[in-house]
Order: sequence, then structure tokens, then C-alpha cells
Amino acid sequence: MLRLTLDMDDVLANTHEKLINIVLNDFSTTLTEKELKAAPLKELLHPKQLGKLKKIMNAPSFFADIEVKEDAIETVRALSSYYEIFVATACMEFPNSFKDKFDWLARHFNFIPWTHIVFCGHKSIIQSDYLIDDHTKNLYAFKGEGILFTAAHNKKETGFRRVSSWKEVSELFLPIV
Amino acid sequence: MLRLTLDMDDVLANTHEKLINIVLNDFSTTLTEKELKAAPLKELLHPKQLGKLKKIMNAPSFFADIEVKEDAIETVRALSSYYEIFVATACMEFPNSFKDKFDWLARHFNFIPWTHIVFCGHKSIIQSDYLIDDHTKNLYAFKGEGILFTAAHNKKETGFRRVSSWKEVSELFLPIV
Repeated sequence: MLRLTLDMDDVLANTHEKLINIVLNDFSTTLTEKELKAAPLKELLHPKQLGKLKKIMNAPSFFADIEVKEDAIETVRALSSYYEIFVATACMEFPNSFKDKFDWLARHFNFIPWTHIVFCGHKSIIQSDYLIDDHTKNLYAFKGEGILFTAAHNKKETGFRRVSSWKEVSELFLPIV
Repeated sequence: MLRLTLDMDDVLANTHEKLINIVLNDFSTTLTEKELKAAPLKELLHPKQLGKLKKIMNAPSFFADIEVKEDAIETVRALSSYYEIFVATACMEFPNSFKDKFDWLARHFNFIPWTHIVFCGHKSIIQSDYLIDDHTKNLYAFKGEGILFTAAHNKKETGFRRVSSWKEVSELFLPIV
């Protein structure tokens, strides 16, 4: 069975959307939702605002209530009949997120056993046939085949096969039945 | 640079010794320290006692004050000049240990960056040239070369190259100077 490893933030979880909502509701900004969705927050916000956002992300419970991406649960469940599924999230930068992320996976993806969850820093450590991730730095570090999940910050990247939704993941990885 | 991945419990950290001290001090037992060190706790304790011990291990702060193994810090520091060092600990079974383990590594091995720390379940996910671990199940699952670190529960194993101390790790992996 081939192994398929899935990133968490902005692949399984709609983290970017939560960040956008925080900017819209709690920051003083003239940016619209459409503008915030079109480009990386790194390019749109002031360094001070980015620092504030990073602090918010490292507060306990930030990761607890993030929405699951559309079609992710059904698709991952279907994929698990054909692939050995691992989830690998580079969360070492946010030590307060560990428990929230573990509980989030147990709540939404309870069919993925704890043996197949990885918290890491650098994704070069992942031994897998495929990795679906929204960061090209993770895909370049990875030794198997990397698949880029579309996000605001990677729209211009061309180095990897790309999927823009879980429907597209399903089309790429599941047999036609 | 070759990559060398190190297990945490009973390789970097003297976890077994802490468990033995708990049994000697807090459990009603006739076993001596010598007897407890000679065989796996799984063989020496009643199932009820093992259950109690597992509960203690999953309580927050259990992992916070474990002693570092003799010569581990100096040896890992020296190894980091010749190898890319990762630490990989199969701690997903103990979700309350995440933060303690992260802080423990930051305290004792502050020269290992957070990018090179991995919390996992099944060690087949580790992409590395070498893995030093005290559990043969982890070494069998691992694709690189596994090195067995001697512990009470693996004394009879013969399938892997063995080290019994950090001095022996140093002899095996460091050039003679």
C-alpha cells in the first residue's frame, strides 16, 4: 500500500480563513475579505500586524475550533481504503498548539489512528510516497512526490502538480468507480 | 551530511529509572531496585500496577523532570558537527506529554532546533540514515539503519547493532581524534 501524507493547516483545516476573520473583525484594516483571500497575508499586513497574528496563533486554543476544509473528511476516509494515510503538521513553531491539534484530529478524523499522526518542524523527515502540502518549502524538502494544495500564498508556484480542492485530490488519487 | 535520528525515552532520557523509582517509592512491592532493573516492567509487575503506571505517565508533568542519560548532552553536541541530528519520540500515546517533552528538549538540548524535533506514533514515517532507539519494533519499522540502545526490555534482542551507553554511541559514530 502506498503511503499518502497530508498536511494539516490549509490542507485539512481552513486555517487561513480563521486568520482572515480575525483580521476583519479584530484588526483595524481597510482590506476587504476578497482582497485578504487573494494574496498572502505576509504581503498584505504590516509587520506589526503579522507579529500580533503570530502571537494569537501561539495562544492556547487557537487551533481548537478551526473549520475542516470542504469535502476533506469524506475524501480522506475514501483514500484510506487505498493508501496508508499519515497526517504531518509542522507545528513545532507553536508549542501551545500540540494538544489542540491532536484533539482536533481525533474529533474530525477519528478514523486516523494516533500511530499515524506526526508533529514536526522540517518536513524532510517524512518518509512517504506522496505529501499534499500548501508550502513549497515543505515539498522541496520532501523526498517523495509532492502535491501542492492551492492557497493564497502559492498561486504563482509552478514546480509541483497542483490540487485546488479535496474534490481534485479525490480525482487525482481515487480510482474511477 | 548523513542524518542521525535519536529516540528520547531510554535513549536521551532516563525514563525507565523514573518508573522504577515510582514503583519502589509509591507501589507496594517486594521487588528490589536490582530486580526492577534486570527485566522489563511488563514482566515484573501485575497488570493492575502496569495500568496505574500508564496513568501516571499520561499525567501532565510526568516527563518534565526526567534525568538526562549519562554523557548524552556532550555526545549529541559532538555528533551534531558530523551529522544532521533529529529527535523523534513516539509520544502520540501520551498527548499530555507533548509540551513537557518539547520544554525538556529545549532545556537540555537547546542546540537542537525546533525544526529537528518530531513527535510521532509509528516510526516508519522517519526519513533518516540512522535511528538510535531502544524498541526493536521501531527499528524494524524504520527504513534506514537501526541501532539498538540497550534497555531492560531488549537485552535478548540480536537483530541490530547495539550500543549500551552514550560512550559507545560516541565510539561508533565519531571519528577518533
